[in-house]
Amino acid sequence: MTQPYTSATESHEASMLSRKFGQEIVNYFSSSPLNRVSFLRSNTAFLRAALPRSKFLLLRDLEPLAASKTTLAWVGYETVRTLVGSPFDTEQEEFLRGYDSRVEIPTLVFLGIDEGVVGGGQGSGDGERFEFEGEGGKYVGRPCFALDVTDKGSLGEECRKVQEEAVEGAEGREFRKVKLDLSLAPPDAAIFAQARSLLDWNNRNQFCSACGARTVSTNAGTKRTCPPSDKALQKNPEDPPFERPPCVSRKGIHNIAFPRTDPTVIMAIINSTGDKVLLGRQRRWPKDFYSTLAGFCEPAESVEDAVRRETWEESGVHVGRVVIHSTQPWPYPASLMMGAIGEARPDGEGIVLKHDPELEDAQWVEFGQVRRALEGNTGTPEVEVEGAAEGQLRLPPSTAIAHQLLLAVVNGFHLAKP
Amino acid sequence: MTQPYTSATESHEASMLSRKFGQEIVNYFSSSPLNRVSFLRSNTAFLRAALPRSKFLLLRDLEPLAASKTTLAWVGYETVRTLVGSPFDTEQEEFLRGYDSRVEIPTLVFLGIDEGVVGGGQGSGDGERFEFEGEGGKYVGRPCFALDVTDKGSLGEECRKVQEEAVEGAEGREFRKVKLDLSLAPPDAAIFAQARSLLDWNNRNQFCSACGARTVSTNAGTKRTCPPSDKALQKNPEDPPFERPPCVSRKGIHNIAFPRTDPTVIMAIINSTGDKVLLGRQRRWPKDFYSTLAGFCEPAESVEDAVRRETWEESGVHVGRVVIHSTQPWPYPASLMMGAIGEARPDGEGIVLKHDPELEDAQWVEFGQVRRALEGNTGTPEVEVEGAAEGQLRLPPSTAIAHQLLLAVVNGFHLAKP
Repeated sequence: MTQPYTSATESHEASMLSRKFGQEIVNYFSSSPLNRVSFLRSNTAFLRAALPRSKFLLLRDLEPLAASKTTLAWVGYETVRTLVGSPFDTEQEEFLRGYDSRVEIPTLVFLGIDEGVVGGGQGSGDGERFEFEGEGGKYVGRPCFALDVTDKGSLGEECRKVQEEAVEGAEGREFRKVKLDLSLAPPDAAIFAQARSLLDWNNRNQFCSACGARTVSTNAGTKRTCPPSDKALQKNPEDPPFERPPCVSRKGIHNIAFPRTDPTVIMAIINSTGDKVLLGRQRRWPKDFYSTLAGFCEPAESVEDAVRRETWEESGVHVGRVVIHSTQPWPYPASLMMGAIGEARPDGEGIVLKHDPELEDAQWVEFGQVRRALEGNTGTPEVEVEGAAEGQLRLPPSTAIAHQLLLAVVNGFHLAKP
Repeated sequence: MTQPYTSATESHEASMLSRKFGQEIVNYFSSSPLNRVSFLRSNTAFLRAALPRSKFLLLRDLEPLAASKTTLAWVGYETVRTLVGSPFDTEQEEFLRGYDSRVEIPTLVFLGIDEGVVGGGQGSGDGERFEFEGEGGKYVGRPCFALDVTDKGSLGEECRKVQEEAVEGAEGREFRKVKLDLSLAPPDAAIFAQARSLLDWNNRNQFCSACGARTVSTNAGTKRTCPPSDKALQKNPEDPPFERPPCVSRKGIHNIAFPRTDPTVIMAIINSTGDKVLLGRQRRWPKDFYSTLAGFCEPAESVEDAVRRETWEESGVHVGRVVIHSTQPWPYPASLMMGAIGEARPDGEGIVLKHDPELEDAQWVEFGQVRRALEGNTGTPEVEVEGAAEGQLRLPPSTAIAHQLLLAVVNGFHLAKP
């Protein structure tokens, strides 16, 4: 399912970069067709005009409403109106001044503008043309939001109603577990990834990590703000806004107010003679399933350093030079996988699993065996592969960056070429 | 100050990767000489044995105690004993059961083992040999911790005492603002970066973002845990532990419990004829100071996508293919900069600053002019360059990845080579 980056390819056939780099690899879950127009998220005039003419992706327990195995389903404003209301009728500053922690607000996230579907598409009411005249020019397309309709809290009943109406809106619609088979078409997978990561981040950040007070979603779901006052603390409705204790997050810019993305490394490590690659397996994976090693980047660690550290900690192998191949967002919950290719040091190829006993096994596997598995025996750890022969190496599917890294290695990405 | 990755270079002269990739670029703030041995952070037996034989880097308001402009200063356990105590005498589970939110605990972070300084070095008591026999083998060297001695809260007086004793410990010692001139030697800069990012993260995460209750540092400063009970809530000291309300963060693994690192992109964008590079400047920078464009990665965005989005949002330029050059940790507070080189689409080179008016200016600058500035007119935005001619392009210093990206571009990194 991984596709080359095509939107710029045609005009780049003879470009400077392409001579050396060839086509850029675009991994699954990346390259959303939406224009995020991130600068419009705090533009209330834009949001107010856009909302009733937008399409909405619904998520229940972080899984999307889908029209089929490959396609997301969208609903129009009419389906979500009673749940969502008109949150952008109030300027953000005024909204924060009137903040009341007793009032539950549905989690609604602006994803971006779908510039491609005007005049067609699978959504509700596609074909409507929406235009917004901004400082930098005209922004045209269908605005897209993600909405959490999980049945919980005081909004539970309203959410259930929206779920029902949406599912009944067209045949075959259901909330689908995407990770199970990664069968969503790449553009839809990228949109879902953005929606899932942002809804999950909002869910996990209901309180301010600096002061412990309740936070509220701002900038159309892409920021969490610790409001300076709370009506729930007022004794009489006529009193002035009840001020909360000071919080450092209200002054200046703080990363804790913005969505969190966790950089991780995933690496194909080649032996020093260039004919084997290091693979490992976790205990919970099916028998015969192996993949490249991976782990989280730490603060003040370059990607290259993290590749060396994680490889040594998990397998005992010492890695020298590291180069980055491509990257892949992974929305469980919000990882950014940096795919790298590294080379073991000739004196450091011995495998030691006991530093950090995370892996059940790690092995040096010959390129030929890897190539055969990539061609004939791949799948996610979660799904049984039909007709897979027992005792044969099984590798991740092409939607996983691990697969792309292994493909690059067995195809000689690391070798000198004229 | 940026050095090639040398520890593996000698044995790699004739390696497979080096033919294509040459030397890996190691950026400032990366490649710490410490072995993080991350799997030992939860090993109380190790921590208990290591603590009294460790060296400590002190930070005040997130700036380190330094021996000179280039070198960090370290103190021994005797200097910090009254402040730090013996936190690892209790197993973590027992410690959490006895948690009392009224008791302030100094922020102490295990950085790793300095395997190089045994027998010498600038610290207090270097030459001591510490060994720990673990499952995966023997770990040998000087354990290193970072300790926050900022004068605040109930520990303020104790912190002031430690500061004074440490500064008086040797001539020339002072708490130095590192960012001002980035003059710390690269290995010391990398250690400081880790210390600063982790202390800052602990400071900003005193409360659980999932439930709002106070958190406590665990895993030697590399995790924040939301304890299940709190003695402060007991009425009588004889009562059983007072349970706090359930919190989702106590079940399973959650990213909110672990240090946060923010992936950012920074990119040298080349025009389609390959002779100019896109530079921009922020309002607050000195006159004539320019750099490459940069911005934060968003959830569910690949690095390549983020480069295209940020470039378009800030400058209006449409980017095609993107490749990643190298990465740099930036501990203000905890960014991971992904340095990339991208190519503008021939039909998308027009500059528009008004989408997101973050930049004061953006320009296409000829390689020759960039080369001259890299050679003769660089510095941080914070420091006046002596003798800098007015009206001449000024660029970031070699410690900044922006400089390395521009150097790569003017030296033909993007051109095909045999």
